[in-house]
Formats: sequence, structure tokens, C-alpha cells
Amino acid sequence: MKQHDAVEVIVAKRDGAELTDSQIDWVIDAYTDGLVADEQMSALAMAILLNGMSRREISRWTQAMLNSGERMDYSALTRPTADKHSTGGVGDKITLPLTPLVASCGVAVPQLSGRGLGLTGGTLDKMESIAGWRARLTNAEMRAQLESVGAVICAAGPGLAPADSKLYALRDVTGTVQAIPLIASSIMSKKIAEGTASLVLDVKVGSGAFMKTREQATELARTMVALGEDAGVHTVALITAMSTPLGRTAGNAVEVQESLDVLAGGGPGDVVELTLALAREMLACAGVTDVDPAVRLADGSAMDAWRAMVSAQGGDPSAPLPVARESHVITAPSSGVLTRLDAEGIGLAAWRLGAGRARKEDPVQAGAGVVWHARPGDAVTEGAPLLTLLTDEPQRFERALESIEGSYEIGSTYTPEPLVIDRIV
Amino acid sequence: MKQHDAVEVIVAKRDGAELTDSQIDWVIDAYTDGLVADEQMSALAMAILLNGMSRREISRWTQAMLNSGERMDYSALTRPTADKHSTGGVGDKITLPLTPLVASCGVAVPQLSGRGLGLTGGTLDKMESIAGWRARLTNAEMRAQLESVGAVICAAGPGLAPADSKLYALRDVTGTVQAIPLIASSIMSKKIAEGTASLVLDVKVGSGAFMKTREQATELARTMVALGEDAGVHTVALITAMSTPLGRTAGNAVEVQESLDVLAGGGPGDVVELTLALAREMLACAGVTDVDPAVRLADGSAMDAWRAMVSAQGGDPSAPLPVARESHVITAPSSGVLTRLDAEGIGLAAWRLGAGRARKEDPVQAGAGVVWHARPGDAVTEGAPLLTLLTDEPQRFERALESIEGSYEIGSTYTPEPLVIDRIV
Repeated sequence: MKQHDAVEVIVAKRDGAELTDSQIDWVIDAYTDGLVADEQMSALAMAILLNGMSRREISRWTQAMLNSGERMDYSALTRPTADKHSTGGVGDKITLPLTPLVASCGVAVPQLSGRGLGLTGGTLDKMESIAGWRARLTNAEMRAQLESVGAVICAAGPGLAPADSKLYALRDVTGTVQAIPLIASSIMSKKIAEGTASLVLDVKVGSGAFMKTREQATELARTMVALGEDAGVHTVALITAMSTPLGRTAGNAVEVQESLDVLAGGGPGDVVELTLALAREMLACAGVTDVDPAVRLADGSAMDAWRAMVSAQGGDPSAPLPVARESHVITAPSSGVLTRLDAEGIGLAAWRLGAGRARKEDPVQAGAGVVWHARPGDAVTEGAPLLTLLTDEPQRFERALESIEGSYEIGSTYTPEPLVIDRIV
Repeated sequence: MKQHDAVEVIVAKRDGAELTDSQIDWVIDAYTDGLVADEQMSALAMAILLNGMSRREISRWTQAMLNSGERMDYSALTRPTADKHSTGGVGDKITLPLTPLVASCGVAVPQLSGRGLGLTGGTLDKMESIAGWRARLTNAEMRAQLESVGAVICAAGPGLAPADSKLYALRDVTGTVQAIPLIASSIMSKKIAEGTASLVLDVKVGSGAFMKTREQATELARTMVALGEDAGVHTVALITAMSTPLGRTAGNAVEVQESLDVLAGGGPGDVVELTLALAREMLACAGVTDVDPAVRLADGSAMDAWRAMVSAQGGDPSAPLPVARESHVITAPSSGVLTRLDAEGIGLAAWRLGAGRARKEDPVQAGAGVVWHARPGDAVTEGAPLLTLLTDEPQRFERALESIEGSYEIGSTYTPEPLVIDRIV
């Protein structure tokens, strides 16, 4: 490979040039090997954030990160594969019901998930509320479970896109998370490496999401769909609303319970709607068009797949879920209609109650979180419970209450907005 | 001091905000103390480079760097003080004759210099060609020498603006040297800390300088003059040409010899012109208007000050200067007038011959460099010597010759351009 120099690559991007394929391959390789230092990569990341990257550069950057590690291959499985990735939202537990649901329809889901950092919870943190469940599987275990159960939710091994793992941690501390080229290549290098044949992206937009405007969300979605197709992964994106939190809970065990409600044929309408919309996209991508996922929720086969999936990873699907030691109820200050419930404020409260972490080595509380007893559009009565805050540590209530302040409004009329805003193919 | 967070400060500048005084004070302090990591500071430096800083931000940034270390005070000296700083050029040996010349006129010069990094040589590297001369003085030695001789050229101690030393090394490897706010605050924090009462800046513009355009040079000069005045240092800047190298030599010992020629009343016209122009500015700033520095060159008193200065720092002013072991002569390919001699090409050749260093721990060769036998405007004769390359290691000639290629032109007419282009107060 042609040798380059870190300063040369940084200066090129700083001055607005397109990086060459050779520069991109070199810098990702050299960073993975420690030849390009963190302080050089963070300067480059800032230059990319401010000066942008062309479609060709993003594609090559993604490919280079993919090439930094192993790439799984499930083409020998007896069923097709599809996966889903969400850019992250408050109360977004969709992966939990969706993975066994799609599996129950005959499509295998190799879902590699992460832990939460920041306001939006992590799927692995939620699953770890289940007694005995383990997040780490070997590649062989994952393959065997995909064949037998069809559903896996587990941690990405260190061998997948190691350049991305290193770069993600760096971006987190250097104010360079928000660059669309870097977000898109980070997500897609992991998802392509994971070996799924098709992929449905849930790109969130709104106060509780990374992308605050529809334009940003659309740009991110288009970029990721193109990267997936470039790499031979059939990719579709839905743009979905994340100004109101999803469902009725934000936390860990409380979100598992809500997912169980959905798998049992009940649960909040928006969670059911989004789970089914994403399931239909995944099935269509995988070429399965003769199964209605709503039926598999209703007839209990999705729940059967959940129980099989949890059991296969050492979890006890019948064990009671952890409950927070302390709770604090916020009552409605007036009667009327709940007209707004702000995802960012609720997410921050759940995080402050102990459901999330500030640093990646911090533990999370399984029982902590927020439950809301009304959703926008619901009638509320003065003095009746509106929100319940949950934590093991009562000293956390004060700061959580501060973030709830101003996060909801009671009025008289509410105009519902669509949950699925757009579809990008 | 109010506590901030590195990511908060980076994100503010990334998104185009002005940093508050409190953010600037905190980030410089925390970086000096190691609480802000190199990868965070380099991301911030790139954001500053691309998004700029207001005059207020630059002033506060400079003040914060100044406050990170000690500040010298020479107000108790029996003579006024003035110093000069050049932004660096090829063949720029002006500090060597200028410092003793100004001292011989009754103004003390506390010149803290650096070693070379990159194409433009370092004053300390040049001075170290002199047998026995030492660059490092204690504060007490420096003060005593300023009182007795009036002239000091020495290394800046680690106590002056330590934040700048750390940041400069970081910028060098992260493609963030070229930011005018960072260049200006780096130079001025060191120069203000050094304790001079007045300061003359020689801001170079042209192919052999950091600033390639007159607009950039003017912006840098105006920024630095304002910073000096803000800090109570009487500051003036000259914008001077650096497309043609200064004098007839680029290197270390060869530039000392050329400086001795000037101090003996001879030397190349441009070196004499610039030395006198800067000396007059320094004397005027210091309030000394009744001495003509040209007379002090002619009557030998500047040379006396040089000898006293060199001796005071352990050097032998009568010792023969080192000579390169190998030389290679380039002859003129045709007869005519030398119409162009490119500073960048000559600087690169001198550097490749061993006069400069690639990394700050590299040694330099005292004898290495380039001597040119004609200056633009001079007649040249086919086959007569045009340039002499000097090195201890003949294998260096090949790469040096590559950088000489295309660096000169022989034609028929040459229109001289002014050396001093502008004056900024």
C-alpha cells in the first residue's frame, strides 16, 4: 500500500480537498495499527465534520473500516437473514419484540447491539435485566442459534470493524460524533461486517434523536442506504418520529416488560405500529411476502421465539424482572389533554435516575427509569398520576425532576403526527 | 474558576460560537494540567482553524497562555528593552546582526529564540555553529548579561508560556499550524512573557514564508500588533518579502559568516537593508531617536557588542566556523540575468542537505546549506558557478538537487520588488 503521512491527509481535508482512495485506506489502517495518533485522527474527524465528504469518500471510508476486521457470512444458513438498526431514541425498545417476531416469520435476525451511552438506552443493557441472560456469544454459538432459533441479540465481538470501535470512542470525547459521514460509516461498517443479507434502518428525527431536523435525517438515511447497496446489502430506511418517547416506558427492565406486552399481543399502539412496520420491511427485503407478522404476534409464535432466544443465551424468560427500590409519582397539575411529552427531557430523567451511564465503564440500574401514564392525546385529570420515576437511589430524584420540568404540556387539543414519516430506498 | 467540559468547549467552537472568557481560561489551564487530552485540544484547534476566532477570543487565549507560566520583568534595567520576532524565512539570519546592533545603540534586546523545524532555520541552530556558545541561560544570567552587554540570544526556558510549548508541538503533528489565531497567540504569548517593553514584528510573505499572500500576512500582523498593545507591549510590524531568500546563504555556519560580514560593515544589500529597517523600528519604539544604527555598523561598535554577547555565553568569537566536508557546484546553464530564485526551493535544498531537521530531536549539521553566487537582477554567465550545495553527507546531494530544479530562472530583464512591503502599527 502506498505510504502517506497523517499531516498530509489532515491538511488535504482541512483545505477542502477530496481524500484519495489510497489516503483513506492508509489512514484507517494506520490508525487501527496505532501509527496515526488519536490527536491526529481527532483533528481529521473535525475537518471531516466541518468540510464534509463526498459519497465516494464515505463509501471508501466505510469499506476501509470494514476491511480493518472480520466479516461474517451467513449465506450458508437455511433461512434468509435481515437485520434492523435504529439511530437511537428514548424508549426505543423495538429491537426486543422485533427480533423474535421476524424470526417467527422465517427470517433469521443476527442482531449485534451495543450498550447505551448518553440519553438513548442500549439494547444490551435492557436485555441484561433478564436473570442469567448473557450478551457475549462466540461466532459459532451465534451461527448455531441463528440456525436453531433464528433470533440472536448479542454484543459485537472485538473482531468486527475494530477501526470503528476505536474511532467511535475517540469521537465521543472530541465533539466529533455529529458528522454525518462518520455516523453513516460507523453504523454501516458494523452492520455490513455482521453479515446480514438485508438491513432496515430506523432513522430517528426529533428532540430525542441525534438528528434534529428532517433534512439531516434524510441525508443520513440516503447516505446509509447507498453504503449498504454499495456493499451488496439490500438496505431500506424508515424515517420515524422521535420528539415523543416511544411506548410508555424508558429504562431497562420496564422496557423489557413493555416488549413482553407487545409479544403477548398487547402493548402501546406506537410500539406495535413501529414493530410491525419494521418487520414488514425486513420480511420484504428478505423476500418473504406470504407471512403477516401481526398474526405471529397474535398467535403467540413471536413470544415462543422470544422465549427460545432468551433461553438459548442462558436467560430465564419466566424469572420476575427487577423492580426499582424507590419510586416517585408526579401528578397532573391540571385536567385536560396531554399535548406534549418531550423525548429529550424524559430521556435525560431516565438517565439521571440510573438507567443510563455517563462513562462506558459505569454500571446501569436494571430497575431505574420513567413510566408515563398518559401519551400525547390522552385525557389527564388534575391530581391523577402522570409520570412515575424509578430508581434504587432516592437522591437521584431531584436532578431527574429538574429535567422533567417543562417536558410536558396539558392543553385542550392535540393533533397527532405520523410515526413513520418517510421511506428511503 | 468555573468548571467546563472539553466536549462543551469543542462543540461551541465547532458550531461557530464565540468562546467565553471562562471557557478559554478553563481550556488552556486544563490542557496545561493534562485534564484536557491532546486529542481534544487538536479537535478544538482544527475547529478554530476552520471557524476562526474573534479579536476578543484571540486576546483572551493569548492572555490565558501567558498566565500559564512566568512573565519576566526588565523594567528595572538601566536601559530600555526592545525585541524583534520574525515569522520565519529562508536565509533569515537578521536576528544575529540585529541584536548586537541595537544593543550598541543603547537598547537592551532580550531575544528568546527557537530551533528550526521545517524549512526555515532556527536562530539557536545558527548560533550553535560557534564553538563553545551555549543557548541555555538562567533567568539571573540573562538579566546580568542584558545589563552588562545589552544583548542576549538564548533559548526560552520551560517556564515561559508552557501551554504554548505543549500546543505548538501538538499543532505541528495535527495539521493545525496554519491558523492565524493560533499563530498569533503562540508568538505573542512567548514574546509578552519574555518581558520586552517593545516589539517589532517581521511578518514574512511569499513562497518561502508561512503566509503566502499579502492579505494573510496583513491579517496576522494586525492581530499580533493588537495583542501586543492589549498586553502593554509597544508593538509595530513590518511586512517583508520572502519569495527570494535573504542574503546569499541558507544554512547555519554560512549564515553566521554572512552576519559577521554585515557586522563588519559589508554583507549583502538586502540583509543590511532589513537589519537597519528593523533596528530603526526597535530604537523608535524604545524612544531612542538620536542614534543612527548605520553608523554603529560602520564604526565597529555593533561588532564589539556581538563579540561581547558571544563571549558572555561561552562562545569564542574568533574561532573558525565549521565547514561542510563535501560541496557540489551548480553552474549557470546559460548567460543572462537571474530573474528568479525561489525561497521555498532553496530552503528545501538546505533542509535536505542537513541544515534543518524533520523531528525536533534530530541534530543539524553546522556546515550544511546552500550558497548562491548571484541574486535576482545579477548577470550570470553560462558555465560559471551559480549555487554551491554544502553537506557532510554526499548522499544528500541528489534529493537537494531535485528541490533546486525549477527554483531559478535566467532571462533578460528583472524588475526589483521592494523588500519592506508595508508597516502596520
